[in-house]
Amino acid sequence: MEQSLISSIQLLLTPHPRVPLGSGDDAAVLDVRGTNQLVISTDMLTDKVDFDLHHDAAQDVGRKALAVNLSDIAAMAAKPVAAVASVVLPKRQEAEQLALGVVEGLLALAREYDVALAGGDVNSWDGDFAISVTIFGDASEKGVLRRDGAKLGDAILVTGELGGSFLGKQFHFQPRVTEMLELFENHELTAGLDISDGLTLDLARLCQASGCGASLDLTKIPISQAAEQMAERTDAEVAASPIPRKTALEHALTDGEDFEILFTAPHPVAAAILRERQDISQLGVIVEQQGLWSAQDGAPIPERGWEHGL
Amino acid sequence: MEQSLISSIQLLLTPHPRVPLGSGDDAAVLDVRGTNQLVISTDMLTDKVDFDLHHDAAQDVGRKALAVNLSDIAAMAAKPVAAVASVVLPKRQEAEQLALGVVEGLLALAREYDVALAGGDVNSWDGDFAISVTIFGDASEKGVLRRDGAKLGDAILVTGELGGSFLGKQFHFQPRVTEMLELFENHELTAGLDISDGLTLDLARLCQASGCGASLDLTKIPISQAAEQMAERTDAEVAASPIPRKTALEHALTDGEDFEILFTAPHPVAAAILRERQDISQLGVIVEQQGLWSAQDGAPIPERGWEHGL
Repeated sequence: MEQSLISSIQLLLTPHPRVPLGSGDDAAVLDVRGTNQLVISTDMLTDKVDFDLHHDAAQDVGRKALAVNLSDIAAMAAKPVAAVASVVLPKRQEAEQLALGVVEGLLALAREYDVALAGGDVNSWDGDFAISVTIFGDASEKGVLRRDGAKLGDAILVTGELGGSFLGKQFHFQPRVTEMLELFENHELTAGLDISDGLTLDLARLCQASGCGASLDLTKIPISQAAEQMAERTDAEVAASPIPRKTALEHALTDGEDFEILFTAPHPVAAAILRERQDISQLGVIVEQQGLWSAQDGAPIPERGWEHGL
Repeated sequence: MEQSLISSIQLLLTPHPRVPLGSGDDAAVLDVRGTNQLVISTDMLTDKVDFDLHHDAAQDVGRKALAVNLSDIAAMAAKPVAAVASVVLPKRQEAEQLALGVVEGLLALAREYDVALAGGDVNSWDGDFAISVTIFGDASEKGVLRRDGAKLGDAILVTGELGGSFLGKQFHFQPRVTEMLELFENHELTAGLDISDGLTLDLARLCQASGCGASLDLTKIPISQAAEQMAERTDAEVAASPIPRKTALEHALTDGEDFEILFTAPHPVAAAILRERQDISQLGVIVEQQGLWSAQDGAPIPERGWEHGL
């Protein structure tokens, strides 16, 4: 049965100019002539943690598995080119259908970004479904946007709006690939990462890597409609959900899976970006004292978010 | 706890000239200047299928997870450079120790081949342990050794000895990276793949991809000591094992996880290789009629091996 599934998947794949040899041999071949640096990210997503196949569609799961990797490539301001995926399927009747749905969802998003699915590996076992995607992107000629380059006085900027991803964005977010390629090409950004575990937690990581702190203007956080909606849930809705009661601002500060990009730039650069673009907000500035601080009263802001517990 | 585990893993990593940015950012950076084509392979290994953590050491599991990928790179006659690994850990007390053991085993083999562990992803869940490794290699200047290039009359060659990997080789095999780099550089090989699912099954795949068949000289199969040992098991030993009773030749023809390389070359090339090297055997020749055939009596040879059942 595995061979027939692999054949079915191979029928869904399309040729790509950067992949002279794709699925079907011991390994795929990626053309890297003209590329100096390849950016590589890998993420594994598992059932009942990153999605739940009891209510989430296989297509949404496949989309998400690629999208979180695209978000990592976006955070490096690189151009995604190709990906490989390995899956392990539960041994049950509909495993083949599940696998095909996942691949369909993944491929639909891959086409949007002209990313080749260059190969993969299909396994099965008595456990639940898991998928691991590894993605490759071309670094820009300027290099990559690391998380450790923020400088004292830099503005802290973010794409899009934050909070409430639980209501749908956790599956349907648009990875900020195009935005970051454009921003990085035209402006001197200093650091960046994607918000996967919550604004305060990921900002703390950027600060830690850069050896600095951040002063956040809590009146400037771009709170999403979904965060407002989450804050207005009834007690019964909260009780039935894995996400505790929070204010809309708290959702924006601490909800995971926003997959927006948090980045820093010197003040004149940030001012130019903010003049040009409606989709970017400034949240605060980089300060010397390590930690996160309220610009309003100097109080410490707790670094909370989604920690993958062991 | 995840962060402390990741920090412990990062302490085990060493810098590598081809990886200017490794673990710790959203993505790793691989230097590909001077490389035209990158060879990429991915394999996921899961508990109770590819190993069993009840009796297999974490170090052996980590070694195997990289080794099977190195074998794929060897089968393409490419030079391995870097790898990334994603794991999902069971939620239990010793998960951190398990993860560190796996990484240690992986890194020990990586060092032998000067392969960088460029990054990864650590997750946990209520299920069993799984690990997915993606590996990158530089294609040789002659290109890669595909599985679809075998020609009528080519000799069928194999590295090493076959069968009985269950007795230990399935964990401790030496991926044939060095051998294949040397052979491919010095000789005009036509096709190749690694024997992961058994000689007859993998030879049938090579033949199918190349649009041909194979005549096998069953007196020329390099039967390993382990295959002989497996054939001499007592009835009680067979009953207690997942591997059925077979003759030593049958073990060599059908056991999985040999991770030797099966390859083809025109006759004069094969003759030169066989003169030069003791570690290569000729098993037969490529014929027109699809399927596998005994050189002795022309009877069809069944294509049996380890099929990953769904």
